[in-house]
Amino acid sequence: MSYQALHARFKRIADLDHALSILSWDEAVMMPAGSGVVRAEAMATLAGMAHELTAAPETGELAQAAAESDLDQWQAANVARITRDWRKAQAIPADLVVALSKARSACEQAWRPARGANDWDAVADKLASLVRLTREHAAALAEVLDCDPYDALLDDYQPGFSRADIDPVFTELETVLPDLVDLALARQTPALVPSGPFPVARQEALAKALMAEIGFDFDCGRLDVSHHPFCGGAQGDTRITTRYNQDDFLESMCAALHETGHAMYQQGLPVAWRGQPVGDAGGMALHESQSLLMEMQVCRGAPFLEFAAPIIQRTILGAETSSPEWQPANLLRLATKVERGFIRVDADELTYPLHVILRYRLETALLDGGLRVADIPDAWNEAMTASLGLATGGNFRDGCMQDVHWFAGLIGYFPTYTLGAVMAAQIFRAVREAIPDLDDAIRQGRFGSLFDWLREHVHGRGSLTPARQLLVAVTGTDLGTDAFLDHLRTRYTA
Amino acid sequence: MSYQALHARFKRIADLDHALSILSWDEAVMMPAGSGVVRAEAMATLAGMAHELTAAPETGELAQAAAESDLDQWQAANVARITRDWRKAQAIPADLVVALSKARSACEQAWRPARGANDWDAVADKLASLVRLTREHAAALAEVLDCDPYDALLDDYQPGFSRADIDPVFTELETVLPDLVDLALARQTPALVPSGPFPVARQEALAKALMAEIGFDFDCGRLDVSHHPFCGGAQGDTRITTRYNQDDFLESMCAALHETGHAMYQQGLPVAWRGQPVGDAGGMALHESQSLLMEMQVCRGAPFLEFAAPIIQRTILGAETSSPEWQPANLLRLATKVERGFIRVDADELTYPLHVILRYRLETALLDGGLRVADIPDAWNEAMTASLGLATGGNFRDGCMQDVHWFAGLIGYFPTYTLGAVMAAQIFRAVREAIPDLDDAIRQGRFGSLFDWLREHVHGRGSLTPARQLLVAVTGTDLGTDAFLDHLRTRYTA
Repeated sequence: MSYQALHARFKRIADLDHALSILSWDEAVMMPAGSGVVRAEAMATLAGMAHELTAAPETGELAQAAAESDLDQWQAANVARITRDWRKAQAIPADLVVALSKARSACEQAWRPARGANDWDAVADKLASLVRLTREHAAALAEVLDCDPYDALLDDYQPGFSRADIDPVFTELETVLPDLVDLALARQTPALVPSGPFPVARQEALAKALMAEIGFDFDCGRLDVSHHPFCGGAQGDTRITTRYNQDDFLESMCAALHETGHAMYQQGLPVAWRGQPVGDAGGMALHESQSLLMEMQVCRGAPFLEFAAPIIQRTILGAETSSPEWQPANLLRLATKVERGFIRVDADELTYPLHVILRYRLETALLDGGLRVADIPDAWNEAMTASLGLATGGNFRDGCMQDVHWFAGLIGYFPTYTLGAVMAAQIFRAVREAIPDLDDAIRQGRFGSLFDWLREHVHGRGSLTPARQLLVAVTGTDLGTDAFLDHLRTRYTA
Repeated sequence: MSYQALHARFKRIADLDHALSILSWDEAVMMPAGSGVVRAEAMATLAGMAHELTAAPETGELAQAAAESDLDQWQAANVARITRDWRKAQAIPADLVVALSKARSACEQAWRPARGANDWDAVADKLASLVRLTREHAAALAEVLDCDPYDALLDDYQPGFSRADIDPVFTELETVLPDLVDLALARQTPALVPSGPFPVARQEALAKALMAEIGFDFDCGRLDVSHHPFCGGAQGDTRITTRYNQDDFLESMCAALHETGHAMYQQGLPVAWRGQPVGDAGGMALHESQSLLMEMQVCRGAPFLEFAAPIIQRTILGAETSSPEWQPANLLRLATKVERGFIRVDADELTYPLHVILRYRLETALLDGGLRVADIPDAWNEAMTASLGLATGGNFRDGCMQDVHWFAGLIGYFPTYTLGAVMAAQIFRAVREAIPDLDDAIRQGRFGSLFDWLREHVHGRGSLTPARQLLVAVTGTDLGTDAFLDHLRTRYTA
């Protein structure tokens, strides 16, 4: 009885989340610029309603009664997850939830034009307000979870990992990667660069063709354009975006393939548990492991590019070609080119963790109180100069204003990217052991065995097994840099 | 105090409506076909929440207390409108609201592919269930409003009018129009038909150019494509759609101009009352009067086409031309061509009311119980043969399956189209009297005086004055066919 009531209550919350997810996709992809204020109000109201339902005393009472009843494994995991969500939600006053939602929308909407205009002053105060509210939020969560405030935020994105888990991994990467980057830069063979322009319509056709080959279900999903590529939409309606650069078809292709990795996870979640917390993905690091497994482990590898090369040629050029710049070997050089750059989302997989670690250091300091919002640009410049040798003084657009995350209130999100990369390497090592002919299958465009394995071991499990236990179960080891550094050394310095 | 609480409560409802409106736009314009079931569930939940908030006993108590407090004219009208909404809402059990929302989504989603396949059997049962629920709904409303069940449904679309008002108007039109159609057909000069194809991108550019000239605010609105053109979106985010036929640029242009008329009303509603019932439009007939005033009274008239001809030439052809088929006189012949046809949305303004009256007769009979859903195709065939001489036996696609309305549960909506046409003629007559140089202004592309007048007398008033009183205040007369028949006689048979 109480389990059924709890189930129904969370279906209502899931329906509000459905609306919020589509409104959020619409805001990034479709909404006219002048409609932001009205939209922010509506989303704040819906977020407040979902929060009220989660945080209500009845939720806790129902969860407690349900936990004492006769439940199967999935129901029990659902109740455990709900209990944790309730404990977190009732720790946050409803007015703080609404204030945060409004501050996030206001700051994100100010950021969009301000980034283009390189105008830090236009967002600094809004970001300071948002960080202040986020610290309040983190402190309240930390009290109920009995943990560090940053760990409490991280828990919203990837439960089961803390600064204590991240710090040794990031410290090792920070130590090892600069030398690896030097070595890769010294050893890489320059790629031939196909000369554009490549019309957007052809790039879009290429992205859609490869998505379809991989198994993206267009009957329950879409591909669109946004400022920053993302995988969004709702359960049963998976919407990914990419962005097009007329001079570089590989950029939109790889962004679409990355988001396709997210999308395959989304589309592989257990349908029977749709609308319940246990049916959700197991966290953002695990989610990112699936996008990076797709993009970095599979699609930027030789077997995939052998498969894709003729499709790329036909779609972008209109016919197959024997020109050297369009052959798999050269496409592989293009897809694995290492270059120190300002922009995280354009970074290769070797320098990418350094971008993430920089953000992690700054955002933990922001949260601990050791860094003020006003000092972000200087701190960014200093850290970027130290880690990649690139100064960003006065260049906010390519520095601290390049990512939407902080401006959307997503502190605690960044480390999940590199946790995801590390987990992707661990999981892909396990996949290769389980499917000995995987390279041949990919070379022939057969992705069935890969996704059968992923659905059985990862996607189809939703949140049943916590991410960390899942990683151990699937790979036989806890989080560690071995597989990731092996992969990087093999690909970039062998 | 109670007024402020009531105001806050209806802002929450408006925010749910915002989400529902955008989800509904998304469903028609963006949503992948396979995501319909999930979407229907989410929309049913949100509609249920909005209904619960409206129907709750506290709403009635707050409204009663607020009505006894010191209110200004707008607040008093808001409370009156809320009281009526509450009385209607609390008459409908929450489970009927959810059942109706689900049945509407299921039926509409079945209708989309079934119409293309001319497959009546694929929708008949779903429509029968929906009509059954709609009759329950109408009966419950009729009891609390103390009126005829059909009038109770009509009240949802256009408060203040009943079958008793509609019947004499429709009976007169039904009597007069067939002869007028004969006369117009006999007298019209055949138009030269510009030969296509006209690329969709150019047609879209034309629609957007004319919308911008008229004053559509693209900073708070969009133009997209859908199966059936409509004006949707939310307050502060007005989204219209059209559809493109490669062979006929006038079709997409006129559909966009029609929806622009709706959009100008939407964008002209009082911003200070956004989110409150009194800030909403004054009903669907009044809304339609604004789209038809734009499309039929203005845009299909000689002054507008003189203004638009060079824009049409430049946008569709790339340059101005002296070819006779592109000149204003010929464009006017094209835009006022009369032809008996199967499809309501393609009908000229002379035969259009006959399409509406047919639907009105059938849907009142459906509701009264004199017509069964299974008998709709035969009844349609009979009525269509009688009124326009066109048999539809076996041709469901161009007959009773052509419109989404019944399949979306919108019984009571159809008469608002022709009420709108009648009111548009009455209001436009008043506008011409108030602005003597209106034709010159339109000929020069100056729409300022027209919209200043409409904003002052119609758009900016929201629901402050009931539509019927507004009509009398603006035109000096009650609803009547004089101005409409005058307009038709002048344009088509003079």
